[in-house]
Amino acid sequence: MSHLFVRTLREDPADAEVPSHRWLVRAGYIRRVAPGIYSWLPLGLSVLHKVEEVVREEMNAIGAQEVLFPALLPADPYKATDRWTEYGDNLFRLVDRKGADMLLGPTHEEMFTLMAKDQCSSYKDLPLALYQIQTKYRDEARPRAGILRGREFVMKDSYSFDIDKAGLDASYAAHRGAYIRIFDRLGFEYVIVQANSGAMGGSASEEFLAISPNGEDTFVRSPGGYAANVEAVRRPLAAEVDASEVPAAEIHETPDSPTIDTLVAQANALFPRADRDWVAHDTLKNVVFNLRQPDGSVEPLAIGLPGDREVDDTRLEAAVSPAELEPFGDEDFARYPQLAKGYIGPSGLKAAGLRYVLDPEVVPGTAWLTGADKPGYHVINLVAGRDFEIDEHLDVAVLREGDQAPDGSGPLGLARGIEMGHIFQLGTKYAEALGLKVLDQNGKLQTVTMGSYGVGVSRAVAVVAEATCDDKGLCWPRPLAPYEVMVLATGKGDEIAQTAEKLALDLDAAGVSVLLDDRKASPGVKFKDSEILGMPTSVVVGRGLADGNVEIRDRKSGSARPVAVADAVAEVLAEIGR
Amino acid sequence: MSHLFVRTLREDPADAEVPSHRWLVRAGYIRRVAPGIYSWLPLGLSVLHKVEEVVREEMNAIGAQEVLFPALLPADPYKATDRWTEYGDNLFRLVDRKGADMLLGPTHEEMFTLMAKDQCSSYKDLPLALYQIQTKYRDEARPRAGILRGREFVMKDSYSFDIDKAGLDASYAAHRGAYIRIFDRLGFEYVIVQANSGAMGGSASEEFLAISPNGEDTFVRSPGGYAANVEAVRRPLAAEVDASEVPAAEIHETPDSPTIDTLVAQANALFPRADRDWVAHDTLKNVVFNLRQPDGSVEPLAIGLPGDREVDDTRLEAAVSPAELEPFGDEDFARYPQLAKGYIGPSGLKAAGLRYVLDPEVVPGTAWLTGADKPGYHVINLVAGRDFEIDEHLDVAVLREGDQAPDGSGPLGLARGIEMGHIFQLGTKYAEALGLKVLDQNGKLQTVTMGSYGVGVSRAVAVVAEATCDDKGLCWPRPLAPYEVMVLATGKGDEIAQTAEKLALDLDAAGVSVLLDDRKASPGVKFKDSEILGMPTSVVVGRGLADGNVEIRDRKSGSARPVAVADAVAEVLAEIGR
Repeated sequence: MSHLFVRTLREDPADAEVPSHRWLVRAGYIRRVAPGIYSWLPLGLSVLHKVEEVVREEMNAIGAQEVLFPALLPADPYKATDRWTEYGDNLFRLVDRKGADMLLGPTHEEMFTLMAKDQCSSYKDLPLALYQIQTKYRDEARPRAGILRGREFVMKDSYSFDIDKAGLDASYAAHRGAYIRIFDRLGFEYVIVQANSGAMGGSASEEFLAISPNGEDTFVRSPGGYAANVEAVRRPLAAEVDASEVPAAEIHETPDSPTIDTLVAQANALFPRADRDWVAHDTLKNVVFNLRQPDGSVEPLAIGLPGDREVDDTRLEAAVSPAELEPFGDEDFARYPQLAKGYIGPSGLKAAGLRYVLDPEVVPGTAWLTGADKPGYHVINLVAGRDFEIDEHLDVAVLREGDQAPDGSGPLGLARGIEMGHIFQLGTKYAEALGLKVLDQNGKLQTVTMGSYGVGVSRAVAVVAEATCDDKGLCWPRPLAPYEVMVLATGKGDEIAQTAEKLALDLDAAGVSVLLDDRKASPGVKFKDSEILGMPTSVVVGRGLADGNVEIRDRKSGSARPVAVADAVAEVLAEIGR
Repeated sequence: MSHLFVRTLREDPADAEVPSHRWLVRAGYIRRVAPGIYSWLPLGLSVLHKVEEVVREEMNAIGAQEVLFPALLPADPYKATDRWTEYGDNLFRLVDRKGADMLLGPTHEEMFTLMAKDQCSSYKDLPLALYQIQTKYRDEARPRAGILRGREFVMKDSYSFDIDKAGLDASYAAHRGAYIRIFDRLGFEYVIVQANSGAMGGSASEEFLAISPNGEDTFVRSPGGYAANVEAVRRPLAAEVDASEVPAAEIHETPDSPTIDTLVAQANALFPRADRDWVAHDTLKNVVFNLRQPDGSVEPLAIGLPGDREVDDTRLEAAVSPAELEPFGDEDFARYPQLAKGYIGPSGLKAAGLRYVLDPEVVPGTAWLTGADKPGYHVINLVAGRDFEIDEHLDVAVLREGDQAPDGSGPLGLARGIEMGHIFQLGTKYAEALGLKVLDQNGKLQTVTMGSYGVGVSRAVAVVAEATCDDKGLCWPRPLAPYEVMVLATGKGDEIAQTAEKLALDLDAAGVSVLLDDRKASPGVKFKDSEILGMPTSVVVGRGLADGNVEIRDRKSGSARPVAVADAVAEVLAEIGR
């Protein structure tokens, strides 16, 4: 410790939002250099290397071969697949001294595809799985939580190349197994969720989410075993309703009712119903966004959903990607006089010619209280399929506990997670765009089918920290700890210092990685630092030495037990399972 | 081999200038992605990792601690030290989505200085040595020779931090020792040369050059042990001459004599000397360049040197850095009517007010034939110190075999090398610019003094390849080879294939890394590929098996000897020194 390049901090960093970020900075594992850009100090780099090694071992074990691409890439392959445009502001772009467009790789589909094209010509060269552990770059709009979402980060990305779908399924399964072993070894709780709606073929895309209340991603689970990220969930369509008894639609004046709450209050005051009160769920809320396409063109999109639901920006963004959301502002309303701000209804949207998508609860026969396209007016008994058309359904409402799973497996529960891995059957998209074909067994050129697989390596350091830290500091699982054992010399006197040093040397000789706190500092400072730094096991050489004892402490449980100095090495080895 | 992601090429790549580049591409170790930007295939990455590990072990052994900085950096620290400007076009610059200036780190002095500043406050925190093994970026004007001079490359860079010069000297010596061990282990011939003129304090800067005829750098050596790169050499001043007998200067008409050769011919024809002919060395050639400073300002610089010498651009660039050289063109001559193109003399240069530096052979009393500042006229008997002033000497002439070493250790010999390492006593430049101070033993703030140390890690792969390859392919030294042994199954029949596979498995079980060529290919193809790939030892299982023999081949010597199958494992272990 007197030589180690580390200095613990007494105060939380001002920008720390989550415990892992706070402790990794306070314990001197990482340092911020710019928003979303961090340096690794010796202890942090040690953990990062250990995570890399776990990933490397499990990738090698399924026969994937390691390569390394540049991070600085020519733009042309990304222009060929249109991602140069699609990535928008998320791409770090630059121009070299000769004027060539270049980028910092956010992901390397194009490069892997071209490398396989360069080396493979026959089905005999397949199946093939390549991976790299490499620094990636994304100019995130909101980098956050330290290394959890950075703009420069380390990823393992791999790609499989197969001659047909059966091969892809096998490659996908092999990666899925490797990921389970990787995340089991890293030692945090995770869940495997569907990452797309299944429209493209069932389980072709899954995410490994670390379960964490500080996660950015919401996922859902049903008692019947369904699990998906919210982007992938498509609630089933509600059952159609018999609307033959519903009276004709009627327009009512509803002054000052631009919000759902004011509207419901006005409705109950001005045209109360005999059988029950108007509630938010009776209203049809119409929300308009602008979608900016990667080519710069902008088109409005109107979404109709029950008034007690909100649009989930994340789900909507996923549904319209690569388009980006922009607000539909006053100047847009000016261009569409058919729309009355705060009083938009299906008729106005149709008159304006806008694309109009409806929530799965808006099915034929359902009757709604909604805008009458005139400031201060609403319409009641407006029946879907009778009074307005249903062109298209799109489920982008915020999900709620109790919503039904799409597969009928019961009500959904919500939880939060951090995306740690993603496995995805890419298919032929990149192979087609970049001409990756090989000869099949009949001598015919076949487009290769690909899978794409990613692990957030630097993120895993934060996730493990997040899952294991407590209110005293970091608390590493043994396989990832920078040192397995910390030896603390607490108290004055040469005997304590010498015993501690000898114990550290003996443990080192026994093959244990040891950090010796040999500083001239108070026992209090040393105890506190050892808790912040988070090595799983400590040996305290201090007061007890007068009775011939040292103390073995377990960082996680906080338990401590005295052992005789003479037995200390053997006891530590037993404690750490050697 | 049937599964390994490698495909050897029969043809040299079109852009390959040097053998290492040719063979690393043909053997499937690297692939070009853009000028100076390469991908590493599995075999190449394996060598790169082994080099990294050698460097890491030796850095750890001197107590240096590993950290990792981002490659994508904020511009501010580089603006604080002015390098944002000084780097000019060599820096990859970009702007992030928020408009912040960023750069891809070409070297990390600023970041290391700031990291030490963040963590160190007292002399007790020193000495400190930090290093990283990391990807660097320089937008080289002329990337060349594959990974020898790339625009994205892997470097080990380290910095030492000390309280005083004595500490810096010790840190420098420790790094020098580590570098000697690193380059000895990598196994190529190298020389340690002075890298500056000594004006800043003796051996404060040294380079480790791999000796190679394909090197970009020229260095010199004397029999007495002096060694320096050409930029560092300052030839001693010639002895002053008694000019009391030299007649007064005389102007002669010398029509059509704008070059040294034409001038010498004219002089011998028009005003011959009795004692000896005029030769190029009697003439004083005056050459003018423009120097563009990083701030954009441009000033001319005139260099006077004997007519039988040329200006060495590399030495001149180093001498005027960070200024850059530009030609002094016709429009410049127009601005200085005192200068006659092709007939420039000291008088005209003085009249024009130009900075005028002289070769060390131009000393007081030497008499010269030089330009008379009038087209078609030259002057003879122009004596330095009598007829024109010597303001400043600067030695930037091309060095020649036989020039004297600055330290009097004899005549210099010239050779070529590749810069593999550089150790340099930086001093306080960065610590001062960025405010890195610590309290000394008297409680006073002291600016920290730094050393800077670099190893070209990816370049080392090329240098080792260059030093060891032959006309058949790569030929790795054992510690860096991707596999220690290659087993070739040559010839048809299950027995050969099975024996080869069993031998490979047995060697693997004995802890040897083995590549088995199990392909359905002719013996000729397999032999050729094994030579191109360059594993140090091969075992051929082929025709000899009928007599119970396999053959052990040494890639380097080409020698082959039969051994009995039963003894093969033991014989291979002996061969590879286990």
